[in-house]
Amino acid sequence: MARNTSVAADTNAPPVTRTLARFVATHPSRGWSEAVEHEAHRTFLNWTGCAVGAATHEAMRAALAAVQMLEPAAQATVLGRSERVDMAGAALLNGISSHTFDFDDTHLKTIIHPAGPVASAALALAEHLGASGRTLVDALVLGIDVACRMGNVIYPEHYDRGWHITGSTGMLGAAAACARLLGLDEQKTAMALGIAASQPVGLREQFGTMTKPFHPGAAARAGLLSALLAKNGFTASARALEAPRGFAQVVSTRCAWNEASDELGQRFEISFNTYKPFACGIVIHPSIDACVQLRAQGVQAGDVERIELKVHSLVLELTGKKEPADGLQGKFSVYHGCAAGLIFGRAGEPEYADDIVNRPDVVALRRKVVATVDDGIDEAAADVTAVLRDGRRVHIFVEHAIGSLERPMSDAALEAKFTAQAAPVLGAGRSAELIAACRRLGAIGNVRELTTLSRP
Amino acid sequence: MARNTSVAADTNAPPVTRTLARFVATHPSRGWSEAVEHEAHRTFLNWTGCAVGAATHEAMRAALAAVQMLEPAAQATVLGRSERVDMAGAALLNGISSHTFDFDDTHLKTIIHPAGPVASAALALAEHLGASGRTLVDALVLGIDVACRMGNVIYPEHYDRGWHITGSTGMLGAAAACARLLGLDEQKTAMALGIAASQPVGLREQFGTMTKPFHPGAAARAGLLSALLAKNGFTASARALEAPRGFAQVVSTRCAWNEASDELGQRFEISFNTYKPFACGIVIHPSIDACVQLRAQGVQAGDVERIELKVHSLVLELTGKKEPADGLQGKFSVYHGCAAGLIFGRAGEPEYADDIVNRPDVVALRRKVVATVDDGIDEAAADVTAVLRDGRRVHIFVEHAIGSLERPMSDAALEAKFTAQAAPVLGAGRSAELIAACRRLGAIGNVRELTTLSRP
Repeated sequence: MARNTSVAADTNAPPVTRTLARFVATHPSRGWSEAVEHEAHRTFLNWTGCAVGAATHEAMRAALAAVQMLEPAAQATVLGRSERVDMAGAALLNGISSHTFDFDDTHLKTIIHPAGPVASAALALAEHLGASGRTLVDALVLGIDVACRMGNVIYPEHYDRGWHITGSTGMLGAAAACARLLGLDEQKTAMALGIAASQPVGLREQFGTMTKPFHPGAAARAGLLSALLAKNGFTASARALEAPRGFAQVVSTRCAWNEASDELGQRFEISFNTYKPFACGIVIHPSIDACVQLRAQGVQAGDVERIELKVHSLVLELTGKKEPADGLQGKFSVYHGCAAGLIFGRAGEPEYADDIVNRPDVVALRRKVVATVDDGIDEAAADVTAVLRDGRRVHIFVEHAIGSLERPMSDAALEAKFTAQAAPVLGAGRSAELIAACRRLGAIGNVRELTTLSRP
Repeated sequence: MARNTSVAADTNAPPVTRTLARFVATHPSRGWSEAVEHEAHRTFLNWTGCAVGAATHEAMRAALAAVQMLEPAAQATVLGRSERVDMAGAALLNGISSHTFDFDDTHLKTIIHPAGPVASAALALAEHLGASGRTLVDALVLGIDVACRMGNVIYPEHYDRGWHITGSTGMLGAAAACARLLGLDEQKTAMALGIAASQPVGLREQFGTMTKPFHPGAAARAGLLSALLAKNGFTASARALEAPRGFAQVVSTRCAWNEASDELGQRFEISFNTYKPFACGIVIHPSIDACVQLRAQGVQAGDVERIELKVHSLVLELTGKKEPADGLQGKFSVYHGCAAGLIFGRAGEPEYADDIVNRPDVVALRRKVVATVDDGIDEAAADVTAVLRDGRRVHIFVEHAIGSLERPMSDAALEAKFTAQAAPVLGAGRSAELIAACRRLGAIGNVRELTTLSRP
């Protein structure tokens, strides 16, 4: 029975679905600057390293076992593993692995991790199709643009309400990327976006469980299937994104429609993608960065009397755990982060292993960290002074941490991050070959040349 | 970066996820009345007939073609077709077909169509496992209870906001049913519900497109995969349904938690399931019902001078199309509905074919229907008088249409509905065999005995 509704709706929204569909279907290949093209390659490299690095994680074992109950065809590669599964399964699994360590990319304006859903879907499809690297890069740039622009439309209300925005916009980016790879026209691309619009994935309540990384994986799979359906003539509303009872208005009370179309085809959201140098929450990054810089200036753990750390109150509120008992707790300890930065000069996943967090020298150093709150210091900054046994004081102020938009990771640093993740899984030689393939992705004739290198 | 949020949240919700998980994992087989057991069989019969009846629809052709691009293993039956696909694909496809004609079951309190997501997932899994019919009926009753109870928690705000509630609660019912079939314990069942909670499917904007029936299909697939993941050790929040950033509070501002647990295990929501006798919106049903009754009283179309129809204003607002041009428009025409009821004594999918809607005698009769608004008549009622050429007046007042909770379809009527849908696809003999199998589902040793009969 029809009901009147008390939920407000905007009946005058612009044609967002059609606008984005036309863009995805018709924007020229490589129709962007060298900087955008380069960022796409950095995004792909970083995503591949994260996926390979988590390939043997318990979450992947469980998810792969579930997918194998479907007896999938061997269509596409599970990065970092010898098993091959169907495209939908590969999209799911690579989406899970790439987000398992929370170490992937971040579109800071929306805190979307865009490569997870988009690259996972696009690579699986591209591999099965035997598509060129050029086609894949195009799909990646356009798909990430769609996901992040729709994120811009609905952020922050959508996120505040409790959606894990990576999976609840990612299916749109994945659908867009796959529609592009399949060469769908504007109308069918609109249908792909429309079908995907009905399938947002992800609740913030899942943070801390395997279902968090499941979100980009499920979004990748949903987007891929949406594009396959559209290719075969399946229909959806051509106003699925913007209609009163369509995606944006159902999942958010804020709908800044202009964000979908402003400078479309000129400004690319992938330009604002960032990569985490450290395998923990971003709020600790400035403090770790400062300690890595202390080490680079010759400060050694054995010489340290104490480390004076001044940070915004939010840092201690979120990561003030003084005595972390294991690696997971270590991720919520700015004290451990500082110790790892000074002792190892990095804080990747290995520096968050249980035995590292409990190693005597690491424990001793983190206990020398004296943190004080200073709300005159920005959340994104840190003020660190090492007071040495000989009385010397070495001071580092980090205004923007490495990995921020203001101080992006260098290509070399991204490659080092990749190697740290991939070499233990693939071996050093194969890891280096895979880096090289990711670097020249846009020039590869068939992406299977790359995926072959990702198997141990 | 962490953000403060302005979105209100209830931090004191009861443990809904665990409560429902314990219920699903531990409630005794057939732990309900004969009436509930019988309703489960009626629900399954009605759902099977709808799925078989739409097996050759264009939406199914497109969806099957998409699924076949994944080269699925032949694990489970697509009802009414010769193709077999993997369990996930079968859950998707049977969910689509069963809702394609909008002719399936309705839990009137929430307007959820519960069998679509739940039976589609459960049958696909049960067939692959070679499970007994008893196990399948248990899974169906418990899964529908979970979906409809969660619907009761969030309806109507959730629906008013724009969610197609069948797919946005159905994944929970599907996960529950599959968890039960897999024999998962309480903890793993909670994980299955938790994983599913992140995957609500469906926007009302999609009504009128193939994506509407996609919603129960995608929900079925999501629930099935959630159970497979949980079986293999994948984790989710054990408060995924009720937490401040969990399912119910993210998708609705109304959360009547007691609806999840009141009389749990004593009152079964499948008891309140209803079945459509006519293949159109429920608001027209009383008028059609009245015309079918006129026919049964001997009124013939050729004798009719005019039909005086008095209905609530909502009926004409939603279905006041006087001159429908095709079958789809016919579904929004109370005038065509009356004509079909009087001429054919039924209004199934064949009576909404384009050529029937345009047949001269049908057109002539619908033009004799004079509808007037009378808001003294309930939305669920209709007052119809046939004025005959000889001056006689035959009056029928329908307080509750056939198919309502107050006047449920008889078992014989459900079988006739099944035959009208399935016989053209399977042939009359096979259709009758399939009815018999559905009738004795709870006693079947291996559900493959039933699915075999559903292939043409």
